[in-house]
Amino acid sequence: MNRAKLIEQIHIKKSFLCIGLDVDLNKIPPHLLEEEDPIFAFNKAVIDATHDLAVAYKPNTAFYEAYGIKGWKSLAKTIEYLNDNYPEIFTIADAKRGDIGNTSTMYAKAFFEDLNFDSVTVAPYMGSDSVEPFLAFKDKFTILLGLTSNKGGLDFQGLTNNEGTPLYQEVLKTALTWKGNENLMFVVGATKAEYFKSIREIAPDHFLLVPGVGAQGGNLEDVCRHGLNKDVGLLINSSRGILYADKGMNFAEFSRKEAQKLQTSMQSILDAR
Amino acid sequence: MNRAKLIEQIHIKKSFLCIGLDVDLNKIPPHLLEEEDPIFAFNKAVIDATHDLAVAYKPNTAFYEAYGIKGWKSLAKTIEYLNDNYPEIFTIADAKRGDIGNTSTMYAKAFFEDLNFDSVTVAPYMGSDSVEPFLAFKDKFTILLGLTSNKGGLDFQGLTNNEGTPLYQEVLKTALTWKGNENLMFVVGATKAEYFKSIREIAPDHFLLVPGVGAQGGNLEDVCRHGLNKDVGLLINSSRGILYADKGMNFAEFSRKEAQKLQTSMQSILDAR
Repeated sequence: MNRAKLIEQIHIKKSFLCIGLDVDLNKIPPHLLEEEDPIFAFNKAVIDATHDLAVAYKPNTAFYEAYGIKGWKSLAKTIEYLNDNYPEIFTIADAKRGDIGNTSTMYAKAFFEDLNFDSVTVAPYMGSDSVEPFLAFKDKFTILLGLTSNKGGLDFQGLTNNEGTPLYQEVLKTALTWKGNENLMFVVGATKAEYFKSIREIAPDHFLLVPGVGAQGGNLEDVCRHGLNKDVGLLINSSRGILYADKGMNFAEFSRKEAQKLQTSMQSILDAR
Repeated sequence: MNRAKLIEQIHIKKSFLCIGLDVDLNKIPPHLLEEEDPIFAFNKAVIDATHDLAVAYKPNTAFYEAYGIKGWKSLAKTIEYLNDNYPEIFTIADAKRGDIGNTSTMYAKAFFEDLNFDSVTVAPYMGSDSVEPFLAFKDKFTILLGLTSNKGGLDFQGLTNNEGTPLYQEVLKTALTWKGNENLMFVVGATKAEYFKSIREIAPDHFLLVPGVGAQGGNLEDVCRHGLNKDVGLLINSSRGILYADKGMNFAEFSRKEAQKLQTSMQSILDAR
């Protein structure tokens, strides 16, 4: 998918919601455990119930790898289902990969070609040649970790150089000089809403993927205040709040209700601009 | 495997060689492509031919993921083969994972429990709570990226704070304060041999996994000069130089010869101490 199509979908759906498919077998409705592939059955139900409210879905690969080959199959079926039935959806493999050049190329092939995701999250620690192999793919996006929403996020990302610039800002600035930087997006956690202003000064045009709204405590309005740009430029992720809204037979309807709440808030924010 | 057993194996074999199983179907002997699982067939032959010369094997997960479910199966068969036939071998999943706390726990389960590796490589960018879930596993090792051997390694790892301390040193120092730090090892690239002295001042006792000898240009003697500690404390990795020594029917014998050269050099270095 290209950037124009993603922006078009945001305006059609009046939503910049991304739903994180972080599926934990201990948390899904127990009746699904009798299915042949409970993870896929759960994802399919959630996707079918929410696809008109969300513009993106984001399976986190950890939750699939933890179940070995079975889990990897559930991931493959999920992305195939999305691509076959909802080609207008932007898909994100939340994999946080990154390695030396020739190895990053293998990861890029795994997610962009074998699984056919539109984008993949990548860690910046190993520098230019660990990220540029991902950026070389046309109409595919590389979502680089910038400022993450977790407790230890600032342990290193917040370290400052002798000019007082924190590492996460150096990462953004440097990445914007790399070949293929038009295919970049950045992960910026919602729990650090006050940082969006300086981030938008560095990267005014790029999309930001924002986890941390909901269970982790981030606030939608706070993020939007400084995070929105002329093309909206935000994908706000919610996982647990939507996925595990209910454990009964009609769990997907409850997921839809939670997604609807977020979409309604997003619509208000967009309409008020 | 615990630390004492690993050290014992190093002394028995007079080797601290790790063989990187980065298997590219375009580079393996063509006759293997007729096998049902060419990657596993290749790994099995290399392992059988070199297991007495190496103390560790390190599949890089990217090379398996690039082939989808088939690749993931080859990885599972490889680690199972190692654990069943050579339980004295230290196994490393070179996966460079890292995510927020509950997600890192899923990755730790994937590699330590589902696949049963002895260790996994982890990226530090997301800080304490992205690494500590790995460190919580007893007799399992978390090999944190410190200073990597690639061209862009210093893009961020070399950034200094106002006291002149580079990021990679901050990563080492900080990680050594985390809970479970006795289960840490660090990745330090051989192409930066001059850095080993300062790294050993920060982490005198921990094992270092050292890629970059051979194809990437690192030198064994240079690394050992400052890298060895009282327990040897180094695992020197070679991948391409050993794996792709020959493309004929007897490729594994050629792999053995390359591994033997490195083991002989290592034995000389150990004997000279």
